[in-house]
Amino acid sequence: EEVAKLLQLKAQLNGGEESQNANQKFTLKTPKGTRDYSPEQMAIRSSVLDKIISVFKRHGAVTIDTPIFELKEVLTGKYGEDSKLIYDLKDQGGEILSLRYDLTVPFARFLAMNKISNIKRYHIAKVYRRDNPSISRGRYREFYQCDFDIAGVYDEMIPDAECVRVVYEILSTLNLGSFVIKLNHRKLLDGMFEACGVPAESFRSICSAVDKLDKSPWEEVRKEMVDEKGLSGEVADKIGEYVRLNGKIELVEKLLQDEHLIKSKSAVEGLEAMKTVLKYCEIYGTSDMISFDLSLARGLDYYTGIIYEAVLLGESGKGDDVAVGSVAGGGRYDNLVGMFDPKNKQVPCVGVSIGVERIFAVLESKLSANKSKLRTTEVQVYVASAQKNLFEQRMLLCKELWDQGFKVEHSYKKNPKLLAQLQYCEEQLIPLVIILGESEIQKGVVKLRNVNNREEVEVARNELGIELHKRLENYKANEAL
Amino acid sequence: EEVAKLLQLKAQLNGGEESQNANQKFTLKTPKGTRDYSPEQMAIRSSVLDKIISVFKRHGAVTIDTPIFELKEVLTGKYGEDSKLIYDLKDQGGEILSLRYDLTVPFARFLAMNKISNIKRYHIAKVYRRDNPSISRGRYREFYQCDFDIAGVYDEMIPDAECVRVVYEILSTLNLGSFVIKLNHRKLLDGMFEACGVPAESFRSICSAVDKLDKSPWEEVRKEMVDEKGLSGEVADKIGEYVRLNGKIELVEKLLQDEHLIKSKSAVEGLEAMKTVLKYCEIYGTSDMISFDLSLARGLDYYTGIIYEAVLLGESGKGDDVAVGSVAGGGRYDNLVGMFDPKNKQVPCVGVSIGVERIFAVLESKLSANKSKLRTTEVQVYVASAQKNLFEQRMLLCKELWDQGFKVEHSYKKNPKLLAQLQYCEEQLIPLVIILGESEIQKGVVKLRNVNNREEVEVARNELGIELHKRLENYKANEAL
Repeated sequence: EEVAKLLQLKAQLNGGEESQNANQKFTLKTPKGTRDYSPEQMAIRSSVLDKIISVFKRHGAVTIDTPIFELKEVLTGKYGEDSKLIYDLKDQGGEILSLRYDLTVPFARFLAMNKISNIKRYHIAKVYRRDNPSISRGRYREFYQCDFDIAGVYDEMIPDAECVRVVYEILSTLNLGSFVIKLNHRKLLDGMFEACGVPAESFRSICSAVDKLDKSPWEEVRKEMVDEKGLSGEVADKIGEYVRLNGKIELVEKLLQDEHLIKSKSAVEGLEAMKTVLKYCEIYGTSDMISFDLSLARGLDYYTGIIYEAVLLGESGKGDDVAVGSVAGGGRYDNLVGMFDPKNKQVPCVGVSIGVERIFAVLESKLSANKSKLRTTEVQVYVASAQKNLFEQRMLLCKELWDQGFKVEHSYKKNPKLLAQLQYCEEQLIPLVIILGESEIQKGVVKLRNVNNREEVEVARNELGIELHKRLENYKANEAL
Repeated sequence: EEVAKLLQLKAQLNGGEESQNANQKFTLKTPKGTRDYSPEQMAIRSSVLDKIISVFKRHGAVTIDTPIFELKEVLTGKYGEDSKLIYDLKDQGGEILSLRYDLTVPFARFLAMNKISNIKRYHIAKVYRRDNPSISRGRYREFYQCDFDIAGVYDEMIPDAECVRVVYEILSTLNLGSFVIKLNHRKLLDGMFEACGVPAESFRSICSAVDKLDKSPWEEVRKEMVDEKGLSGEVADKIGEYVRLNGKIELVEKLLQDEHLIKSKSAVEGLEAMKTVLKYCEIYGTSDMISFDLSLARGLDYYTGIIYEAVLLGESGKGDDVAVGSVAGGGRYDNLVGMFDPKNKQVPCVGVSIGVERIFAVLESKLSANKSKLRTTEVQVYVASAQKNLFEQRMLLCKELWDQGFKVEHSYKKNPKLLAQLQYCEEQLIPLVIILGESEIQKGVVKLRNVNNREEVEVARNELGIELHKRLENYKANEAL
């Protein structure tokens, strides 16, 4: 009897579903960890990306694109244990393919495959990670990356300092508030580990432990070093002394006097390189934002030289002068391209990845806090009609204005109400409306209305273009962005 | 012994490979049917897309983005037998996902999911089809689509005529030579089939046969109708009479007198709709490019009203006034969104897809025929040095010019040869070079060189910005595009 009831219930449920909709029997959603971008989100995105691209272009970068998927082998062995997060395509009787995980490995593959030994390029595109998405913290499985890299054999630290300058220009132009760019050097880190007595084979794993210092307190990181990674407490404490240091060029000078450090060739090389790059940053006008920070380690294995990370500082006005997180990071990776070259030919590279998703999120929340209404179109003029049966007249005027390059809309209904048309303009923040009426048409004029202050004037039809140009000259679609 | 030899040979081969490269044991390539886009290709692409986007914005469109993959069920049952070309992702213990096949189905899913009942949007993004790629004919498995659609309940043919106007503006602005926009109506096609005596259940399959008329002669299409699709020769011949007709509004008038056609309610509705849209096209100034063409059928099942397709005509100067193929197409699809809505709520849509890949290919071949050299960067000024040890001076000047917003490069080498620097500028088509030398620095001037005519003048350092602005005022990076 129980079973019969259950079956009946099930039948009802199924029936209910089917009668509701024969076509659709699945939840209407985007895949886990992904999302659509609404017109409002796209408006913010376009504005941010336009500004970033203009900085990249100011520094003479070209752009390239690569396929969204790569042969799986191209990605294999590049991301360490994160490789489990790679999306694979189904084997449909062809090649074994995976979605790209970042833009750096495809860039290295591109250089090796096309035997390019120097290029300065940017690449803005989506990448894929089967991570456990934390939507609330803005982490998705599909997200934009925005990379700028300089490849080629050049003199020390000159391209590296320009990458720092690029980050500086981008964060300045985006008006995100104050920020700091932390710099460090992988050779100095290695030398520091050496000087503290870390066994060489543990450098990388201790480096990842140090990398956690931006999120965890020293005590926890020390615990990981000692309990999990087998360092003695004494060695860990020595590291602890160094990683709390940060400063400017005088810190480099001080460390070049450090009797333990200078026993390590690697540390001295790292410090000399830091001296050079800090001098170049002085020339490039970025010093004020720079902190030489010995706790900066960066997660990725492939870095070989300078590393950097830009962090937004909270609004100091609110008294919470705390970091809201990393918005750019990068460094030098001289050995990655060689992994793809049949003869292991190396192409030294240095680059930076702008954390555009985090920047989008910061701006979105800023705008919603300001209650700023965002325009999602750039319509300049709306052509309305005040009476019935003027839709062909409206169409004709739209045609004339499109011919002159104006951004123009009108109602797709033949006889819309005037009030509805004017309301639409106010909602959409369209600055100007032309109102057509029989009497104006006969007089060869139109009524031109300023949506903002609702003032109306008559303009001769043959002077309309000039008048519109005049009124739109200083108009900007979104002051807020 | 044989076996031993083979094993030895194998060991040699493996050893050889490994000694050549321990890291890389696979061919360096992009997946089948995909490609990288070089800086030159990207320059063409950006230029084309910028122009297209400015037309979309002129008509007040917003833009959206959707994930590159969808739940497989979203795509199921939308593409007929082409569904076998869908790329599936590997089931990695989550949802069953597929790469998007076009932008129309994700758009319909987006509307239904967000309960949007009117929107005008464009979407430019890559789509994926596991087709047998014909690289020579420019067909890839990964390619850009570029769609503009108007969704909402509006008066008949007003948004439809605007879509045609959008195609007209885009093809005019891209300077691709002369073109024709063919128009037809699905209801007229159905009515025509009805009038000719085609059984209702064969309308769609006969429609796909007609769709082949742009590539195949009538005789072949007739054969398919009779031999494969079971029409009588007499019925096929009647269809043949109609599909060779094309013209302007007077053809609509003539067909409205056709005693067979006007027996079909559907045909009359289609003809009346054609009359309306042709009148609107007259107002919108697009009539000269329009051909009402009864052979136009369009492949996709989901069209319900007007359909259109734009075709480039060959250079008539060369005497081969033949079509080089479709570069845009679209139509009305009023029932697709309802397939996603739990209550089958319909949102009528009309849209157009610009064949940007074909347009890119046409422009690429044009440029290579012209031997036009394309700029891939927008660098305006190169800062060179004439003597050694001036690299910090160069860096300082770059910094000053970047601060003023100029697009500036210099060598990443400390002491590059002057000739090498000047050659770089000529190769890269950079218009201006500043040449720094000790004596100029002491005098507070710089030497400014016009790369094109190699003329050099001295400019006071504090007047440099003004002078550069003046010289760059009318400079355009790529005249050819």
